[in-house]
Amino acid sequence: MTDALTIARDLVRCPSVTPADAGALGVLESILKSAGFEIHRVTFSEPGAADIDNLYARIGTGAPHITFAGHTDVVPASDETAWTHGAFSGDVKDGFLYGRGAVDMKGGIACSVAAALAYLADIGGKPKGSISFLITGDEEDVAVNGTIKLLQWVAARGEKFDHCVLGEPSNVEALGDCIKIGRRGSQSGTLYVDGVQGHVAYPHRASNPVPDISALIVALSNEPLDHGSDQFQASNLEFTSVDVGNPASNVIPGQARAKFNIRFNDHHTQETLKALVEARVANAAGNRIRARIVWEPSNANVFVTKPGAFTDLAVAAIEEVTGRKPELSTSGGTSDARFIASYCPVIEFGLVGQTMHQIDERTPVSDLEKLTKIYRGVLDRYFG
Amino acid sequence: MTDALTIARDLVRCPSVTPADAGALGVLESILKSAGFEIHRVTFSEPGAADIDNLYARIGTGAPHITFAGHTDVVPASDETAWTHGAFSGDVKDGFLYGRGAVDMKGGIACSVAAALAYLADIGGKPKGSISFLITGDEEDVAVNGTIKLLQWVAARGEKFDHCVLGEPSNVEALGDCIKIGRRGSQSGTLYVDGVQGHVAYPHRASNPVPDISALIVALSNEPLDHGSDQFQASNLEFTSVDVGNPASNVIPGQARAKFNIRFNDHHTQETLKALVEARVANAAGNRIRARIVWEPSNANVFVTKPGAFTDLAVAAIEEVTGRKPELSTSGGTSDARFIASYCPVIEFGLVGQTMHQIDERTPVSDLEKLTKIYRGVLDRYFG
Ligand SMILES: [Zn+2]
Ligand SMILES: [Zn+2]
Repeated sequence: MTDALTIARDLVRCPSVTPADAGALGVLESILKSAGFEIHRVTFSEPGAADIDNLYARIGTGAPHITFAGHTDVVPASDETAWTHGAFSGDVKDGFLYGRGAVDMKGGIACSVAAALAYLADIGGKPKGSISFLITGDEEDVAVNGTIKLLQWVAARGEKFDHCVLGEPSNVEALGDCIKIGRRGSQSGTLYVDGVQGHVAYPHRASNPVPDISALIVALSNEPLDHGSDQFQASNLEFTSVDVGNPASNVIPGQARAKFNIRFNDHHTQETLKALVEARVANAAGNRIRARIVWEPSNANVFVTKPGAFTDLAVAAIEEVTGRKPELSTSGGTSDARFIASYCPVIEFGLVGQTMHQIDERTPVSDLEKLTKIYRGVLDRYFG
Repeated sequence: MTDALTIARDLVRCPSVTPADAGALGVLESILKSAGFEIHRVTFSEPGAADIDNLYARIGTGAPHITFAGHTDVVPASDETAWTHGAFSGDVKDGFLYGRGAVDMKGGIACSVAAALAYLADIGGKPKGSISFLITGDEEDVAVNGTIKLLQWVAARGEKFDHCVLGEPSNVEALGDCIKIGRRGSQSGTLYVDGVQGHVAYPHRASNPVPDISALIVALSNEPLDHGSDQFQASNLEFTSVDVGNPASNVIPGQARAKFNIRFNDHHTQETLKALVEARVANAAGNRIRARIVWEPSNANVFVTKPGAFTDLAVAAIEEVTGRKPELSTSGGTSDARFIASYCPVIEFGLVGQTMHQIDERTPVSDLEKLTKIYRGVLDRYFG
């Protein structure tokens, strides 16, 4: 039986800095093939981006179908000489596995593979439904040839997922403290205010867009978009820049623009959110100020896996192993869960994120063992 | 006797586009020398700027001392082929003298010289006080080697002016409609607001300077600096730019800055104005917003020649010739009067400015005759 530490070490030893695969998917392919999974390796291309290898492996043909998602690519090692143990050495020292990807997220993938293998060995055959692995090499960088296309590819084959566990490092302080069940949406835009250019000595012949856009910025920043929801903190709008670029100290400029980003919760969709913000701008602008918004192409919609049977089952597995009752969180940065959420309910649970993306990224070996048990507990309950 | 039209034509035919003199000061020098003026030609230099010729001519040694100030340099002709008459031809057609500088302000200089010559001829000798001409070739461009230095040069000789008439085209529609008796001051500055940079997903860990500077811009723009004074319209603050320059849509920036310019009246000095604006910023910023102002080097202080005996005398001379009672105005763009005002009371009165700096700049010949009579009337009353 291949254990999580061995798989994790083998993966860490592949220097798979995006877009390099460096053999990482091959490690998984050979293990999963031996365990009876049907393996698909698919390469996706995009003009201006590197071709990326992806892996989809499934065992079983029926429902329910649970998929473990993840990425084998990692961020660069930064200054390799600063690492106590080589960034791609996979050294184990004092109970820790060191290396880039140890927690984000080769360790998480290793635990899910080890758990599936153990589960299949124990049931001595195929599962009552299906177990699959949805693994990409394109998450840490532009993420255009990864999960988003692999999901489409699987759907085009007529296959469906019922639930997904994404093994990203979801825990903040200790294994078991946090499951991520969703994420706020993100939407950017630029607010333009048109005035009338003129000379500062004759302001009555001009219309200065600077105080006008300032008034709109104040109005939009002061009024909350909502007060949070059951699963989410309050939506928030932040102006990230305001620019005129007028070098002439005696000229009233003709236009001002301000860029903003909104993180929004499930009180909104991108469409209702845009309508709300545009209404507020129109209201603050009145008849006098000529304002308009140009929206960025859709960044990411809000998504949430509402607490229910699936999250209960994960919470129970986590509590059994760690004694902790995890928070169901929707905070933090973006992940491939935003893509998966369009296909099936998804939760994120993996290792502890503290050292991710840092020098000396590492995980306790005991966490690898516990996380394997948790995933095993998820499978037991899912098919139980 | 040399008449104003002849002097004006001779001056217009010198293509004295700043910094070129092209013989213009020589025209005046020979006329004034013949009339008994003591002539000084002085050249000023400044690193990075062209050397500029200037002329100071005086007749008489006693007080009162009235000086006629002006500039012989002109702005470029722009598209010379677009002129009905050559830009430097000095053509007279249908009662108009055409050419660059006809109104701004070779025509005005010509009238003052013709008036002084006529006055001196009539009194048959030296004036009871002194008449002088303070003529520069550096007004239209950077104005660093012109009136400002010529005034210092004269003062260093121990000479004093009691009053000055600057022959800039002060009239808007018709000869006699406007005397300029002062000008608002100008002061520029940059408002900085320091925040704390951070990620838009974690606004509580950051402090966004964009809404904060916007609130300060609104506060400063909404509260009037004053409500005008006897001679001046209200002071006015205009924000000319606001800039952050943050290209990252997911980053809350660490600083924002806004440039502004204030045109201020005689309720303020530069010092009291700065203190007032800083107090308002401090008040609007409260304890939370970290704001500061960096002031530009002094642009121009406010100045005014209060209505009194000197303006009365000019008004009377204008009314006698034109039948119009001129407005005593403090509006409009800057001129060398800002420098002269530090030495003596100064009024600006010259031709009609409508065509200045344009293609086909021109003045009615009859205005040259009338302006000469007005200046003569000023001299009669000044020494009368
Ligand atoms: Zn990751
Ligand atoms: Zn001028």
